[in-house]
Amino acid sequence: MTDFDKARAVWMKAGSVFMIDQRKLPYKYEVFEAENCAQTCEAIKNMTTRGAGSIGAAAAFAVAQAATEAKSGTAFETNLEQIRNTRPTARNLFDAIERVSQKAEISVQAVVDEAKKYAEETAQAGKKIGEYGNALIPNNSTILTHCNAGWLALQAYGSALAPVYKARESGKEVCVYADETRPRSQGARLTAWELQQASVPHYIIPDNAAAFFMSRKKIDLLITGADRIAANGDTANKIGTLEKALAAAHYGIPFYVAAPLSTFDFSCPSGDKIPIENRSEEEVLFQEGPDTGGQWRKISVASPGSSALNPAFDVSPVSLITAFITEKGIFKPSEIAKLYDE
Amino acid sequence: MTDFDKARAVWMKAGSVFMIDQRKLPYKYEVFEAENCAQTCEAIKNMTTRGAGSIGAAAAFAVAQAATEAKSGTAFETNLEQIRNTRPTARNLFDAIERVSQKAEISVQAVVDEAKKYAEETAQAGKKIGEYGNALIPNNSTILTHCNAGWLALQAYGSALAPVYKARESGKEVCVYADETRPRSQGARLTAWELQQASVPHYIIPDNAAAFFMSRKKIDLLITGADRIAANGDTANKIGTLEKALAAAHYGIPFYVAAPLSTFDFSCPSGDKIPIENRSEEEVLFQEGPDTGGQWRKISVASPGSSALNPAFDVSPVSLITAFITEKGIFKPSEIAKLYDE
Repeated sequence: MTDFDKARAVWMKAGSVFMIDQRKLPYKYEVFEAENCAQTCEAIKNMTTRGAGSIGAAAAFAVAQAATEAKSGTAFETNLEQIRNTRPTARNLFDAIERVSQKAEISVQAVVDEAKKYAEETAQAGKKIGEYGNALIPNNSTILTHCNAGWLALQAYGSALAPVYKARESGKEVCVYADETRPRSQGARLTAWELQQASVPHYIIPDNAAAFFMSRKKIDLLITGADRIAANGDTANKIGTLEKALAAAHYGIPFYVAAPLSTFDFSCPSGDKIPIENRSEEEVLFQEGPDTGGQWRKISVASPGSSALNPAFDVSPVSLITAFITEKGIFKPSEIAKLYDE
Repeated sequence: MTDFDKARAVWMKAGSVFMIDQRKLPYKYEVFEAENCAQTCEAIKNMTTRGAGSIGAAAAFAVAQAATEAKSGTAFETNLEQIRNTRPTARNLFDAIERVSQKAEISVQAVVDEAKKYAEETAQAGKKIGEYGNALIPNNSTILTHCNAGWLALQAYGSALAPVYKARESGKEVCVYADETRPRSQGARLTAWELQQASVPHYIIPDNAAAFFMSRKKIDLLITGADRIAANGDTANKIGTLEKALAAAHYGIPFYVAAPLSTFDFSCPSGDKIPIENRSEEEVLFQEGPDTGGQWRKISVASPGSSALNPAFDVSPVSLITAFITEKGIFKPSEIAKLYDE
């Protein structure tokens, strides 16, 4: 069973950033060591670690590495720019850079300390999100989630999955429908793995099947994480979230977005201003995984010669969102301004 | 370039049913020979051939094989039952069995002749669907389609793709966004392959990305095929169609269902009465394809030990459908009764 008070997705020790290699899960549990800022940036970019909070923690540690490595203010700024260029949609990345880099005026040690504090605060935010969100989960309910927004994605506990874990802890019966989440299968691979580890009953479903199960009254609520929430509440999250949100609205199913305050971007007025990361078409055209003999293989899953489009995120307009679950409590879309004051 | 007047997905010769093996495309063009009714049934079930019209044609030929093989009326009925049990949602299957088996009262040869006539009528229906549907496609438009509803799926021309092919033939510039269509990837594999063969510009997109592209005004219309259309117009089609239909309705994008009359089931009052086929979870948990060296591999794409749900179809309520494109013309949902008279 997962020890949610101890499990961490990313951590720092003696100048290196360590992260659970999420490209290898669920098949292999391996820890990747990034010895310098450039390696940490590459690991964020290639999704060795991923998920809003874990990206934030990794970015915070990358800033600490940048401060340690930099011989000048210019060199430090160049390093920060490298971190910023890894995942353009992820608000937590920029939040971490902004907050942690401020300490560079004091000392390198102050930056390192702030990075560790930032990462741990993210973990604790997950715990609070779980406690508040638990109140929204009825006993004997089925929760649909998209992508992975568990402890792997938020350093600890999770955003979308934290309320589920807390619901189970408090004795409720719940079942999770985990969207596969093509093209990178974070739902089928990471969410399913997390739920197995925590003994939460669940089924993997194709992304295409969510509306069908809603139409047959199999889903009670939809909870997802978020990668960036604009000031008006429009929410960028993993591609496909918008389809689930539209279906949930059509069938009268509540849609909760679970995210720490660090995912809110009050400088961004609305969703159309959120930059959307486009990733390589290779992620759509090929799929990797172990064959029946355990050998890692890369196979073609599409007609050779055709091109693919691969936007990594979409934006659910705030009109589709029932409420936001944060570490400060549950907020309706009309109450977002209160979060700005926090 | 595809010769749409000659290309056929399924045909019969000297007692055998021949079909393009759609499990091997786009990597290998192979023709599968089913020597008897049982083999044809297995080929329908395991999706060697697939798609409403091609299932109908294969079922018609299976009835011809059944009539040839049967030593008695009881044996013939047992064979028919075997055909009925292959794909429960597919209306064309039952339509073919009902129509072709009636000729058994006359002679075995009459059954064989009727089967060939039935399969060819399906092919010609595709051509007419293309001609009528072309009128709905503006020049310089982008069409979203789901699954494969091209000539592989309807014997010839196609249902959803026939209007696209005719639009190209008439000199219009069009681009197709082909949903990957997990779990069996008919969009990424078969639709993309067909569009390549016919030189139609296209992109493969993850199923999750359709609503995103609609929200960014990249899609002008949605056209899909159908597996069974109830008397009120509710339409069963490949799992995921409902999500696209909901998104299209939200963004004011017309949604056309292209299907021959043989897909309409006037004995079925509404969509909730359409049986939905559940397929093996293996299709979700594993993916097959050639590796970079061309070797066929089966890889795990999900966390081992987790279960998956795999409904093969969903039902789009008629309220989401703009019109039906048939071989008899274009019909609004309010005009379906006219089709019953046909």
